[in-house]
Amino acid sequence: MTETIHIGNNALQELTTLLQNRAFSKVAVLVDENTLVQCYPAVKPYLPAHEIIQVKSGEANKTLQTCEQIWQRMTELHLDRWSVLVNLGGGVIGDMGGFSAAVFKRGIYFVQVPTTLLAQVDASVGGKTGIDFHGLKNHIGVYQEPQAVFINPAFLQTLPPRQLKSGYAEIIKHWLIADAAAFEEQRYIGLFAENWEEIIRESVNVKVKVVEADPLEGGYRKVLNFGHTVGHAIESYLLEQPGRMLLHGEAIAVGMLCEAWLSVKHELLTKEELEKIETFMISIYEKVSLTETGIQSIIQLALQDKKNTGATINCTLLHGIGKAVYDKAVTLHEIKESLHYYTLL
Amino acid sequence: MTETIHIGNNALQELTTLLQNRAFSKVAVLVDENTLVQCYPAVKPYLPAHEIIQVKSGEANKTLQTCEQIWQRMTELHLDRWSVLVNLGGGVIGDMGGFSAAVFKRGIYFVQVPTTLLAQVDASVGGKTGIDFHGLKNHIGVYQEPQAVFINPAFLQTLPPRQLKSGYAEIIKHWLIADAAAFEEQRYIGLFAENWEEIIRESVNVKVKVVEADPLEGGYRKVLNFGHTVGHAIESYLLEQPGRMLLHGEAIAVGMLCEAWLSVKHELLTKEELEKIETFMISIYEKVSLTETGIQSIIQLALQDKKNTGATINCTLLHGIGKAVYDKAVTLHEIKESLHYYTLL
Repeated sequence: MTETIHIGNNALQELTTLLQNRAFSKVAVLVDENTLVQCYPAVKPYLPAHEIIQVKSGEANKTLQTCEQIWQRMTELHLDRWSVLVNLGGGVIGDMGGFSAAVFKRGIYFVQVPTTLLAQVDASVGGKTGIDFHGLKNHIGVYQEPQAVFINPAFLQTLPPRQLKSGYAEIIKHWLIADAAAFEEQRYIGLFAENWEEIIRESVNVKVKVVEADPLEGGYRKVLNFGHTVGHAIESYLLEQPGRMLLHGEAIAVGMLCEAWLSVKHELLTKEELEKIETFMISIYEKVSLTETGIQSIIQLALQDKKNTGATINCTLLHGIGKAVYDKAVTLHEIKESLHYYTLL
Repeated sequence: MTETIHIGNNALQELTTLLQNRAFSKVAVLVDENTLVQCYPAVKPYLPAHEIIQVKSGEANKTLQTCEQIWQRMTELHLDRWSVLVNLGGGVIGDMGGFSAAVFKRGIYFVQVPTTLLAQVDASVGGKTGIDFHGLKNHIGVYQEPQAVFINPAFLQTLPPRQLKSGYAEIIKHWLIADAAAFEEQRYIGLFAENWEEIIRESVNVKVKVVEADPLEGGYRKVLNFGHTVGHAIESYLLEQPGRMLLHGEAIAVGMLCEAWLSVKHELLTKEELEKIETFMISIYEKVSLTETGIQSIIQLALQDKKNTGATINCTLLHGIGKAVYDKAVTLHEIKESLHYYTLL
């Protein structure tokens, strides 16, 4: 990957260094109402003269309409191709800010300053940008690397527990697909970790290695989609259900359980391994209740997944804990069964 | 450039070959109401099973709203990352279809089948895609090469004379910036050309050479912007004036005259050369009348041009006929003077 990832307490100093060394014509900072209050004051001293672009927080606002507001502000601020957008926030800000920058005047520079655990270990790394479209997750977007990523673990202290748990799901995913030893050792520490910097660093390393091997998701990168075929569909479905919206990681946690079950069904994972994953996940994540009608809708959404070829659902499955295999064809019926398994847990 | 450009009467056979050789999961054809009637019947026999996506013609519809309709249709048709969009139309269809494909599910394949002279010699070559935003030309877009371009000169017979003249402006531009000999010889033939294939081929070659030298417009590619700083501003301005909309090439023709005048002002072009250009252009293009208020608006729009750094207007000027220089700083006042020169022609 071309981008540099700075992790640690000196990450914001590195941001200053980048902004000083490069002659950006203008600096704009994209925030939402939460990061404006909780994170921007800590970042401000590290920034040169800059403008603020504020949008509403939340996945429900990761839309083309919000992009239009961002582009309108960028236009008013006369940002040009030598300007930089600093995306200060969680996955929504990073994905949407990255997309907005990547297509404004055919592309201006951007950097990621992820403020949630989810964005720090996943969304900010790997060059995927995008927005939701008519309820479909990241349906519109591009691959575009940021100039750099600045991960400051101190921001995690601003997070509500639910947000921390959501990000933790991607850490678990990285263990399950690529690091059996970390899964064995570190899951007992769980969310009581004191040294997040090290956990983040290891988790980011898993992602970086996978992305470097396959930046445009031609093949191997798909291992990162573990939990996401069913997870995205659940997330899209509940996004449309008033008051039932899940955080991304919460949906992926459900997706990982379903897809671990599918891995057993395809004889790639043992029942004992599934039980180990089950026990751990249930200790952290609240159960999500799904009706039969809901399950039907989720299956239809799974069919729209970007990873599919035609009518086949391509899924990433676990081949034992610590290893994943991609492009495993599963049927709609099997996905339905996996959701039934989940509802009966 | 990675794309292949097929020019000639066998271009549509080449399209068939590409679509047969590549295992695209689905083929969709983007048309407007004109190309559906005038061009699609000629292309249909060369296509495998396909779907049609129809949008309204014209620059006024090169918007995010139309992209939303395209994405909605693509979603309904279950296009996936292994599908291909065939853009059958002029510059609007090519630019907007290219952009829509480039960001749908983070990018699906597309090919260009340009049907206007403008699109054949300019828009379809070079990987620029985009849409207008709040009246600003190509304000949102990406650089993305199509899989291939298929240029069938026979489509020119479907064009009204005004459309042919519009495309001819980009041919003139290619002569002025890179081919003095062609300007000298071929301008006498003008629009009565019998062998468009050869004229198109030479014109495309100029563009290809420039784009290959600088695909992302870091420097030299900017020579292609000759006529476009003032031209785009005029085009944007008149787009908002009911009934006064110009075709792209018509606006660029005005822009080239203004920027040729600026070239004289900057002592890069002689008055005699300017007169030669004037005489030729006036023999082809109708005069566009501009009021003082209009000129003020045009200047403000020129300031928003993508090519600017901060408050300086970077302009491509002629350094004699057949050679261009880029990044020449011109003042707003000079642009105003050039528009006054034009109104007094």
